[in-house]
Amino acid sequence: MARILVTNDDGIHSRGIYVLADAVSDFGETWVVAPEKPKSATGLGMTLHKPLRVKKIHGKERTFAISGTPSDIIHIATNVIVGKVDMVVSGVNVGDNTSIQVILSSGTIGAAAQAALLGIPAVAFSMAVNDDDKIEEQKNMLKPIIRSVVHYVLTNGMPPGVDIISVNFPERIGKNTEVKVARAAKTRWRELVDERIDPMGEKYYWIYGKPTEIEVGTDVHVVFEEGNIAITPLTLNLNIPVPNTEDSKIGQYFSGLCEDMVSTIRKIYK
Amino acid sequence: MARILVTNDDGIHSRGIYVLADAVSDFGETWVVAPEKPKSATGLGMTLHKPLRVKKIHGKERTFAISGTPSDIIHIATNVIVGKVDMVVSGVNVGDNTSIQVILSSGTIGAAAQAALLGIPAVAFSMAVNDDDKIEEQKNMLKPIIRSVVHYVLTNGMPPGVDIISVNFPERIGKNTEVKVARAAKTRWRELVDERIDPMGEKYYWIYGKPTEIEVGTDVHVVFEEGNIAITPLTLNLNIPVPNTEDSKIGQYFSGLCEDMVSTIRKIYK
Repeated sequence: MARILVTNDDGIHSRGIYVLADAVSDFGETWVVAPEKPKSATGLGMTLHKPLRVKKIHGKERTFAISGTPSDIIHIATNVIVGKVDMVVSGVNVGDNTSIQVILSSGTIGAAAQAALLGIPAVAFSMAVNDDDKIEEQKNMLKPIIRSVVHYVLTNGMPPGVDIISVNFPERIGKNTEVKVARAAKTRWRELVDERIDPMGEKYYWIYGKPTEIEVGTDVHVVFEEGNIAITPLTLNLNIPVPNTEDSKIGQYFSGLCEDMVSTIRKIYK
Repeated sequence: MARILVTNDDGIHSRGIYVLADAVSDFGETWVVAPEKPKSATGLGMTLHKPLRVKKIHGKERTFAISGTPSDIIHIATNVIVGKVDMVVSGVNVGDNTSIQVILSSGTIGAAAQAALLGIPAVAFSMAVNDDDKIEEQKNMLKPIIRSVVHYVLTNGMPPGVDIISVNFPERIGKNTEVKVARAAKTRWRELVDERIDPMGEKYYWIYGKPTEIEVGTDVHVVFEEGNIAITPLTLNLNIPVPNTEDSKIGQYFSGLCEDMVSTIRKIYK
């Protein structure tokens, strides 16, 4: 029987996490461990300098809130609360996690990434809505679709090289909704800053975003232009391979850089 | 004349940022914009639901503290304080940023990544020390080495496909220190959790790490086993390409997943 850890970054009171937990509950032993408060846009941030608290939620079996980030939760859950888990599912997030820009700062993906670093298969679910009511409303459509994804991954494992499978649902799922594999766009938002003056006469600033141009074939296009479901396989391997020769442009670039640095070091000590 | 934004995640009072700013100051117009408080392990986290404050630091030219994360700083600096910048340098971080695990949660790399998403060349500098005194002590070695890196990148641009160049210094730089291009290891730490009881009799938890096994050829090996400087080129492209055919394993995997999901959707509406 599979042991599944269900988590999110919207916090233990978000309805999305219970839609996800209900969907997977009969695949095995399901544990719900989530931040006590919303922790959106925390990425893989961890809490190293503050102690963490764990609170069992009354009236709910195997359900816990933690005073930390989604990354903290993976560590506390696997070390203290649950033990070894076979799969981590994260979400259903209120709001899409499309584009590299959004993915890199997402706590939903952060939890999945932290699981992947521990070698645990990880699937993240997000929905292009701005309120968890809209997830709740569509739970009868969402649950069987989520079940089919989790069943597939439990049966087939993760494909080689894939650390996270990210699933983004459009705002509305209907009978003609399609499912497409799509790469993450580079950006979804152009960040802008709004300057304001507080009642004491001091300046303060809000960061907000305007949508960037949408490229065909990306997760953003599938979810927002087509209204379909996007499946995006992600790697955490950020490495750019550099051949150890001068034959390639990138090899030349970095051997030049190393030479400059070494000759600087040798000069300091001459 | 180049306009260079110097930032970090250790905060405006860390000595590392001034070592970095001094090192690059005569390449052009240098701006120092940093978090007012340390923001380590915030990754690419952003502040969207709280207003931000900007404070000019007295007695220091073009130096500002912001009540936000390293990612916030890139947006506020480029939108409000500085305008268009030619390069972002982040650091010198107290503590290495070796391994994917550490990189993904690093605020130092987070600032560089946020810059890279805006198309700005970004270099991150980190040092395997636990105190900024040790950066200050070695500033006469660090500054010329940093200068050689920044000069090289200003002259040659970033190599194609590379979003961030991450430089990790060992604890001590000496006359025989070498410079090596090295891929980021997967992990550096195995996270453990320590359970304690507070004076009121309630449990609380600390997350801490023990080093994982070090693999030859990685940034961790170069910095900690060899005591050399590691140069690690990073991409932010987390996409795994999926061919649109059944010929490849990964193509088969995802077409099977999509089929299962679509047939589930069609059944709901039957």
